[in-house]
Amino acid sequence: MLARLLTQVENDTPEGRAALGELFHRSGQAHLVGVTGAPGSGKSSLVCQLARHYRHPPEGEIPRQVAVVAVDPSSPFSGGAVLGDRVRMRDLAGDPGVFIRSMASRGALGGLAHATAAVVQVLDAAGYNVILVETVGAGQSEVEIASLAHTTLVVEAPGMGDDIQAIKAGLLEIADILVVNKADRPGFQATERSLRSMLEGYQESLPDGNQSSAPDLLKWLPPVLCTTATLGTGIKELAQAIERHAEYLRQSGEWQHREARRLKADLESMLRDALFVRWREALAAGVLQRVLEDITSRRLSPQEAVKLLVGC
Amino acid sequence: MLARLLTQVENDTPEGRAALGELFHRSGQAHLVGVTGAPGSGKSSLVCQLARHYRHPPEGEIPRQVAVVAVDPSSPFSGGAVLGDRVRMRDLAGDPGVFIRSMASRGALGGLAHATAAVVQVLDAAGYNVILVETVGAGQSEVEIASLAHTTLVVEAPGMGDDIQAIKAGLLEIADILVVNKADRPGFQATERSLRSMLEGYQESLPDGNQSSAPDLLKWLPPVLCTTATLGTGIKELAQAIERHAEYLRQSGEWQHREARRLKADLESMLRDALFVRWREALAAGVLQRVLEDITSRRLSPQEAVKLLVGC
Repeated sequence: MLARLLTQVENDTPEGRAALGELFHRSGQAHLVGVTGAPGSGKSSLVCQLARHYRHPPEGEIPRQVAVVAVDPSSPFSGGAVLGDRVRMRDLAGDPGVFIRSMASRGALGGLAHATAAVVQVLDAAGYNVILVETVGAGQSEVEIASLAHTTLVVEAPGMGDDIQAIKAGLLEIADILVVNKADRPGFQATERSLRSMLEGYQESLPDGNQSSAPDLLKWLPPVLCTTATLGTGIKELAQAIERHAEYLRQSGEWQHREARRLKADLESMLRDALFVRWREALAAGVLQRVLEDITSRRLSPQEAVKLLVGC
Repeated sequence: MLARLLTQVENDTPEGRAALGELFHRSGQAHLVGVTGAPGSGKSSLVCQLARHYRHPPEGEIPRQVAVVAVDPSSPFSGGAVLGDRVRMRDLAGDPGVFIRSMASRGALGGLAHATAAVVQVLDAAGYNVILVETVGAGQSEVEIASLAHTTLVVEAPGMGDDIQAIKAGLLEIADILVVNKADRPGFQATERSLRSMLEGYQESLPDGNQSSAPDLLKWLPPVLCTTATLGTGIKELAQAIERHAEYLRQSGEWQHREARRLKADLESMLRDALFVRWREALAAGVLQRVLEDITSRRLSPQEAVKLLVGC
């Protein structure tokens, strides 16, 4: 039932939209954790181990309901999202406390982040306590995930290509926790050292914020952790760091702040859509088409067209 | 002067917007070529060699004005975009027929594609015949470039990581020309073979289109070309393929079709902005803030809020 509902929501059908509106009141409880990093860093294995940890926690802790949302580039051959991560997660698949969803990114110009947010909201309302959102690739999508997640992990691995350095710099800005995965490989210490020194440089470049005299609980310095996901090494420590970050977000008011900022952006985007639809329906037939022809022939600029149509 | 104007346009200042409106009438002449691919594929060197080729063409051809727009992740340490590509382009920097622009992607949530489109429009109106737009990273940004460019090159190199395979599948959909760069490295034949077979599989999976009985000039099968950018090998053949693609676009009507689709999206996005601004200005003070508080406390869903505020 949940899977069917998610498909409705993903495809933005009227039923999906109605369900989103109703489920909204029950959402806002889950901890959203984004897991991002360059191809080959072993994100999927790490997500898998984290899910396993939440399902089988150390004694004295309560197992949590875990959802995994894998945002993968689609394969036109399989007719949908690639199945790699699902295969890797197979040993968790029999557990009713784990829900795995693979999303296709094909052709979702600006729409993938929107669809992911909607899927996450449904999983949140369905009672999943931790939602791990994994993305492949670098750039725009990482920034969008950072704005969705409460906690963002940036995963690196030793011995990546030469362009990686440039990407790291951009990712530092969105990282709440840095992970050097594949720590059993040669060169992991160099990767860790270089990450730490980049992080220090970045911290020093900030205007003030983290250098302020705020009490310790109200500051957050992204830690650098080492893991070997394939062996399960370092996963407990990583889960503890994620928990500490949630604690920090709640104590400092950042949790509410991030939530409010995200909901404001959601509302504005929906208002824009609704206003455009209402305006276009009131417009005489053929007007938009004629204006577009004048633009295509370069007689009219889009700026002039907007002035003509909206008056500002 | 051009660099200053581009900064205005990039920052979306009133002056920048006014200039865009005026320059629009003179744009629409340049051939926009997107160059994309995974980190480490050697895109920058390839762009550099292409620019050099257009400036110093084979005898009988006219040199063209070339602009390069490098969309790089920003480095918080350099206080702007990374300088790597500019350094690599240094030997072209003294040529007044070459203009190089590096763009920062920092925090440009949804805005980078918009800013890139604006910068490209100014360079087009300024008389650059070929505009090469290079991006780092995979995913969303590639799709956005494909919708901006007339011709999209997807660059691969031998011996990339294990996640790359999944990315390739997504990129096949937007590739007009596939390039195996670093063809002097071991394994390049395997990369080329695997690209060709993926491409064949993709072509066969298409409903009809390219298998139709249209005349040859009205069909386009993405070619796979091998280059070694660092040695300049295969650049002439690549430039010829780019030219053939431009020819195909013009003959088949695809050029006008892509242009119209892009201008329509531009216009709609500007209309949405203008309608929202006009609506918000007419709204009583404090209304949006109160609605937002009701949403944050989960009393009201964004869907209900839109109904309340816009009536649909």
